[in-house]
Amino acid sequence: MQPVRVAILGGSGYTALELIKILLRHPGAAIVAITSRQQEHIAELHPSLHHRLDLRCQPFDPDALQAQGVEVVFGCLPHGASMECIPPLLERGLRVIDLSADYRLRDVSVYEQWYHEKHRDPQNLAHAVYGLPEIYGAAIERARLVANPGCYPQTAILGLAPLLAHHRIEPAGIIIDSKSGVSGGGRTPKLNFHFPECNESVCAYGIGHHRHTPEIEQALSDIAGTPVNVLFTPHLIPMDRGILSTIYATPTGPIQEAELRELYRHYFARQPFIRIRNQPPATKDTAFTNFLDIYVQPVRGKILVIAAEDNLVRGASGVAVQNFNRLLGFDERTGLV
Amino acid sequence: MQPVRVAILGGSGYTALELIKILLRHPGAAIVAITSRQQEHIAELHPSLHHRLDLRCQPFDPDALQAQGVEVVFGCLPHGASMECIPPLLERGLRVIDLSADYRLRDVSVYEQWYHEKHRDPQNLAHAVYGLPEIYGAAIERARLVANPGCYPQTAILGLAPLLAHHRIEPAGIIIDSKSGVSGGGRTPKLNFHFPECNESVCAYGIGHHRHTPEIEQALSDIAGTPVNVLFTPHLIPMDRGILSTIYATPTGPIQEAELRELYRHYFARQPFIRIRNQPPATKDTAFTNFLDIYVQPVRGKILVIAAEDNLVRGASGVAVQNFNRLLGFDERTGLV
Amino acid sequence: MQPVRVAILGGSGYTALELIKILLRHPGAAIVAITSRQQEHIAELHPSLHHRLDLRCQPFDPDALQAQGVEVVFGCLPHGASMECIPPLLERGLRVIDLSADYRLRDVSVYEQWYHEKHRDPQNLAHAVYGLPEIYGAAIERARLVANPGCYPQTAILGLAPLLAHHRIEPAGIIIDSKSGVSGGGRTPKLNFHFPECNESVCAYGIGHHRHTPEIEQALSDIAGTPVNVLFTPHLIPMDRGILSTIYATPTGPIQEAELRELYRHYFARQPFIRIRNQPPATKDTAFTNFLDIYVQPVRGKILVIAAEDNLVRGASGVAVQNFNRLLGFDERTGLV
Amino acid sequence: MQPVRVAILGGSGYTALELIKILLRHPGAAIVAITSRQQEHIAELHPSLHHRLDLRCQPFDPDALQAQGVEVVFGCLPHGASMECIPPLLERGLRVIDLSADYRLRDVSVYEQWYHEKHRDPQNLAHAVYGLPEIYGAAIERARLVANPGCYPQTAILGLAPLLAHHRIEPAGIIIDSKSGVSGGGRTPKLNFHFPECNESVCAYGIGHHRHTPEIEQALSDIAGTPVNVLFTPHLIPMDRGILSTIYATPTGPIQEAELRELYRHYFARQPFIRIRNQPPATKDTAFTNFLDIYVQPVRGKILVIAAEDNLVRGASGVAVQNFNRLLGFDERTGLV
Repeated sequence: MQPVRVAILGGSGYTALELIKILLRHPGAAIVAITSRQQEHIAELHPSLHHRLDLRCQPFDPDALQAQGVEVVFGCLPHGASMECIPPLLERGLRVIDLSADYRLRDVSVYEQWYHEKHRDPQNLAHAVYGLPEIYGAAIERARLVANPGCYPQTAILGLAPLLAHHRIEPAGIIIDSKSGVSGGGRTPKLNFHFPECNESVCAYGIGHHRHTPEIEQALSDIAGTPVNVLFTPHLIPMDRGILSTIYATPTGPIQEAELRELYRHYFARQPFIRIRNQPPATKDTAFTNFLDIYVQPVRGKILVIAAEDNLVRGASGVAVQNFNRLLGFDERTGLV
Repeated sequence: MQPVRVAILGGSGYTALELIKILLRHPGAAIVAITSRQQEHIAELHPSLHHRLDLRCQPFDPDALQAQGVEVVFGCLPHGASMECIPPLLERGLRVIDLSADYRLRDVSVYEQWYHEKHRDPQNLAHAVYGLPEIYGAAIERARLVANPGCYPQTAILGLAPLLAHHRIEPAGIIIDSKSGVSGGGRTPKLNFHFPECNESVCAYGIGHHRHTPEIEQALSDIAGTPVNVLFTPHLIPMDRGILSTIYATPTGPIQEAELRELYRHYFARQPFIRIRNQPPATKDTAFTNFLDIYVQPVRGKILVIAAEDNLVRGASGVAVQNFNRLLGFDERTGLV
Repeated sequence: MQPVRVAILGGSGYTALELIKILLRHPGAAIVAITSRQQEHIAELHPSLHHRLDLRCQPFDPDALQAQGVEVVFGCLPHGASMECIPPLLERGLRVIDLSADYRLRDVSVYEQWYHEKHRDPQNLAHAVYGLPEIYGAAIERARLVANPGCYPQTAILGLAPLLAHHRIEPAGIIIDSKSGVSGGGRTPKLNFHFPECNESVCAYGIGHHRHTPEIEQALSDIAGTPVNVLFTPHLIPMDRGILSTIYATPTGPIQEAELRELYRHYFARQPFIRIRNQPPATKDTAFTNFLDIYVQPVRGKILVIAAEDNLVRGASGVAVQNFNRLLGFDERTGLV
Repeated sequence: MQPVRVAILGGSGYTALELIKILLRHPGAAIVAITSRQQEHIAELHPSLHHRLDLRCQPFDPDALQAQGVEVVFGCLPHGASMECIPPLLERGLRVIDLSADYRLRDVSVYEQWYHEKHRDPQNLAHAVYGLPEIYGAAIERARLVANPGCYPQTAILGLAPLLAHHRIEPAGIIIDSKSGVSGGGRTPKLNFHFPECNESVCAYGIGHHRHTPEIEQALSDIAGTPVNVLFTPHLIPMDRGILSTIYATPTGPIQEAELRELYRHYFARQPFIRIRNQPPATKDTAFTNFLDIYVQPVRGKILVIAAEDNLVRGASGVAVQNFNRLLGFDERTGLV
């Protein structure tokens, strides 16, 4: 069987690099095009790709991509730019996995409230599928446009799903205290990501207004069948990659640790990338993998959940390939183990 | 005026090193003795002290310390060892600032429950003063034995004090999510502090049973005048030093951000080392200083407090010198700015 | 075709972990046994292996390994221990790739001089092949015992091979200034690898007596056909992995940059894992890969060579699999790209 | 006695921040003005200065500085900008300690060759004194304009001074392999200082054309009384601060380790900030201090020197204050221990 011909939009950032590395190991995918404003050889942008991928970046041109026989496009553009480029691709019958936030929030007004800009493609938003395979797996398989989930939201949504699905916690007052490596901030140099600023330091940011909040609430409300509210506090940690979310929720009734863990094991029984741990995971346990590790414990009247992932693999490019596998009918693990 | 003659017990660890560096700049203190099982020159134990302190470590001997004219002793021993060494010093009339946990918990049974060992000096425990100057300042001035506070507890106690003193938050359901640099774990090599294990990684530890919990609750209950319960989750962060505590509490009634911040500014108006910040602090803002920075914001039905400090200075040796200054009648800031 | 049944001796360290991760992706190898003094499940020793390898460590027993059908054994034991365990395996007809230093130095007296202990298996040493595929490729294919090369030596040997093979530099006065991440020091907690000691710091160690010196000189002398002497200075860098060697040599005559680079490209033309770079490589360009990147430039009367690698992959477990591939007749790149 | 009124030009960078912190502890200096294009409160630019310095940055205006009674100006501007601002200050009789490179190279043509720009103030260059106190101490005391030395050059110059002064090494073929923390690159965000690029990585840069080369050679030639040539290779290390230079030189004749070390001890006998170490220093031993630690050892036909310093204190702002102390007649150590 011929490998599926794929293209990547926006090749200069970290999610594109991670995606390339994963796809190079994927027996069913061939990278035939990468777009970038910088039309350099991909190994000039990412020196680690020397001798691994011999491709020069090309300007974005939907006709050219179609002519190159591209079947699936991965979007690694910033939000805002994504909704400019994706409509012409869908029109030409290409399928798209978009790693930006443009198609994640079903409600246009919520998007506009949190992203402070007009949504310019409500038509495709209407049929986009939120690409969290463990929750929306069946819909992903039939999708033309997959809105790949955010890095933080996956830890929060998967960390809380079993509890909310089984009504074991109150849907209000949930606290999500997240810690992320710096690569989550992207590859554009900024003072707060300048090495001597963020090394040897920890700080919180985006308190009360981080854009992943409505994304978390949308999925959790789906799962709970009732509106869910969260207080989400992200922190910047001096490491390259990894997200650890420490989550605090109020149980609806008494529950034991063993029962809790069993609830989680059962809920995720068929999910190859979810590991229910007996000890609190370190982000390093998941580094460079598509695993998302979850630990749960009742403590002092609360239920505490810890979820760990690699923000670039599981949190972005790995789950994108997991979605690709579902979309194309590959085994979900292809290229990811 | 002659400088006060001081001794340090347990010279090989990080708090001792930090204490030495601070005291070398203190015009009113002279380090005349350092004890250690390793009877080496202090600069052999801590190479950064070459040409700065010419002193060989000596075995612990209370008579020798008395004969050397020592007036104040800083204890940098592990808990358990402290309560063995401190009684003979107090008997000989020396004053002691103990950086271990042995004299922090007033209730012997609480100590024994959390530290899993018998308290062997209840007599001195009875008159020990908890050395958090911003809260117990007057008592410290008259103390013979100061129990220097833990690193995490200071961020939690000072971060919540204004709210609890003014009954602006519920005394239950308080969540303290803390992030600490690795030096907080001490200088003894262990796998979880081995560089390739904890670098590039974040994890929680001691969930529900970290020994700083009762210390936090004791002080907060004093301040509130009613029992306070907290859920405290410490995390290990890949950096040398710094603690950031993100604290979530439930307000007793509506309160605005400006009012909150004013409440804090007023509460700490006379405290030279507390800075009420308008932006969330980074631990680096406090690195190598005795400042404790606090940020407070109402968010999504909760009050969120962030408190940052240097765990070795403010969290241990700096506050010990602040206590020393109060004990001896120096300006509180001496040697610390 | 059935995958080759392999065993790993000494499963608790970093090279074993890295080897396991590589072999799990290798279509021609099946890990059937891992030995360790700690007879725990491998995922207890290495939490990242949960759901990836379901194997309990077993005590070392050559008969058991033979009975399990093991064909190739990877030794991840410390030097000294290796030469105890390997003879009985070879006797039973198993082939061995030993990652320790025990079989690297052909001359027993050199081993004993640098390792300060008696060599207890000179018989097998006599037929062991030094496992640097780019230099000793043909011999590796016929070997029963491969002495996998050290991490530093590979950067030095491959970095200098083209120059010495073509007599373009003097064989004396070569300076190798190497910088290594901390994982190179192993997984046993020690003060100099304790996070707060080695983080935010750089230092040299083993000056003039590091044991990789004779290993470098042995291979370089083979290549040059004349004795080569080097001054090798390793440094510890605050990062998990990566080695960068900056090498200074004296040219035997004038040579231009372009000619130099062409010499390197030609010398390594058939080597899939050597990349001759036009810019000085960063260790990160090679992280988690088996590539060794080389840069060469004439500068101020010297020839400067920079060689970068991942010390755990290329420097240890990756090259071990490369050797395995040669030994078993697989494509050299299998499992490594 | 009134403290000396000082101003700082260019308050937004790391050397200015470090200088402010040192001067705040200096009993003989009062910071009365800080200039910056960003006319914000200094604590807005550097949050660590909250409650420590209450000063708003002002635009550069030599008349205003004079009117404010400023006596000494520290220049923390980039090279090029310095030589624009300094002439009008000298004209008004202010003394200047310039931390840029503009006045370090006596020979205008050398400056223009290495900095690729015209020198626009040769007149003041003619009387500027190179501010390395251990070498040019007497001249500094009489200077009107001190050219504060570069960070790397200090390790190289002081590391080699005793050997060259006593003709114990050849003046040619000297190799200086230096490793620096990232703060040495300044505070302007750039891709190569972006956390996820330089963390977990080491690389060389500026090979053969780093601008500190002629500065090193100028001072070493002064000391040797003959032209000295060096090959200087800087490397970027994932840490905030610290420089370690590993230096290789060829001895002019046989010399023993003890004699070497004695030579160094004697040469620097009166220098309070030079520590001759018996063990290779780690940069951390010197962190946040003005000490420069030197280790020397004969090895394999070469003399190896290791010199370690904090690049922001000893390498820039600390030595600037040391120069200030000499200029003003204070004890050299004032504010620095």
